Amino acid sequence: MTSTTPTGTLILLRHGESTWNSKNLFTGWVDVPLSDKGVAEATHAGELLAERNLLPDVVHTSVLRRAISTANLALDKADRHWIPVRRHWRLNERHYGDLQGKDKKQTLETYGEEQFMLWRRSYDTPPPPISADNEYSQAGDPRYAELGDAAPQTECLADVVARLEPYLNGPIKDDLAAGKTVLVAAHGNSLRAVVKLLDNVSDEAIAALNIPTGIPLVYQVDVAGPTLKPLNPGGEYLDPQAAAEAVKAVANQGR
Amino acid sequence: MTSTTPTGTLILLRHGESTWNSKNLFTGWVDVPLSDKGVAEATHAGELLAERNLLPDVVHTSVLRRAISTANLALDKADRHWIPVRRHWRLNERHYGDLQGKDKKQTLETYGEEQFMLWRRSYDTPPPPISADNEYSQAGDPRYAELGDAAPQTECLADVVARLEPYLNGPIKDDLAAGKTVLVAAHGNSLRAVVKLLDNVSDEAIAALNIPTGIPLVYQVDVAGPTLKPLNPGGEYLDPQAAAEAVKAVANQGR
Repeated sequence: MTSTTPTGTLILLRHGESTWNSKNLFTGWVDVPLSDKGVAEATHAGELLAERNLLPDVVHTSVLRRAISTANLALDKADRHWIPVRRHWRLNERHYGDLQGKDKKQTLETYGEEQFMLWRRSYDTPPPPISADNEYSQAGDPRYAELGDAAPQTECLADVVARLEPYLNGPIKDDLAAGKTVLVAAHGNSLRAVVKLLDNVSDEAIAALNIPTGIPLVYQVDVAGPTLKPLNPGGEYLDPQAAAEAVKAVANQGR
Repeated sequence: MTSTTPTGTLILLRHGESTWNSKNLFTGWVDVPLSDKGVAEATHAGELLAERNLLPDVVHTSVLRRAISTANLALDKADRHWIPVRRHWRLNERHYGDLQGKDKKQTLETYGEEQFMLWRRSYDTPPPPISADNEYSQAGDPRYAELGDAAPQTECLADVVARLEPYLNGPIKDDLAAGKTVLVAAHGNSLRAVVKLLDNVSDEAIAALNIPTGIPLVYQVDVAGPTLKPLNPGGEYLDPQAAAEAVKAVANQGR
């Protein structure tokens, strides 16, 4: 009956559909809102949390509207709207560089399949950097003012893993170690980075791992060491059947 | 060109209409949502902030849904959804004791005008305490667990002032002193308490002071002393005409 391993519950939630999903544009750090479907997905995520009585004590979000709104809607539905909130740019989506705001199909036609897939799915090849005068640049955005020249102008997945690691094994781990159930509302690539770090996924395999939107993914983690260690590698989706179907659909996207 | 008084900008925002306003029920700590009208009021408040370029760097809310949603909606509209969030029960509405969930008109008929107005508008007469088995009690609500036996079972306005003062001249003042523009999204009586403390309003006069919903009230405050001191006593409403009309309407309520 005694447990010697201090453990915590970490819930990952990818934001629902945004208005740019249906427009098929590269989004990255561009701060677009949820679509109506995305609002419904976020609300449903809150229902899943409430049904399973998985009630977050604290929420961490990126500083992007689609993740923040997802957290707000899910927590309101689960009657946990009142918990402490922490936000950080380190949970942001991958910065898509000069591709931000561009049409995916058109980009594919312009640059060809090989270059396109390298930017989308390689681990360490970032797209060209965005210029400060591009309308989809975040230059001058006050939420990144403290970053100064260190603000990314493009990122590959390896960059996301590098900037996310100190936040996962810092503030998030601290909350877990304090006995809190932690909800992280974030993005496809920042959550890929979390899963890579938790499950020690290889650089080659991580790009093929698709996390469905709006379905909470729950890890039990050992918080004793310097880095979080999952007790249930791969985690557990609260709606496994819907998650499997969504992963299949995502994998077929852009095919 | 030099200023020797360290000052800050404090924006007070009373939540919009809740679903219990139209039902004419005493609400207090019962956690009801905004009505459609309340959602529109909150959104409009965000428009007012954006128009005047009064952009909060941090938001403080109560732990009640109607204030939290108001902040979320207003900040989203003003493109400040990403700022740090702090929540505290000390910003809650006055606890209405055994009157919570009761119909106002029926309460007036049962207890008579004198008793009714004493509970509603006296400074130091609380309604009877709510019992733990009342369906509108907050006994067992996890957001107040840390309060234990100190959780209020009823409050008069003097109680609200007493529990709010250390938060106003503590965490809120600290944020102002750090140079941040602070938004406080709260309730009719908790904001009355803030105004009483800022403007040194007498116990007799404060009950007659009505703060309209959804219209930001802006104070410039001196943050140098142990307590906040307004440089513009009474503050400034962002839409003074709408505020004056709303105050008149509130004053006529229940007449």
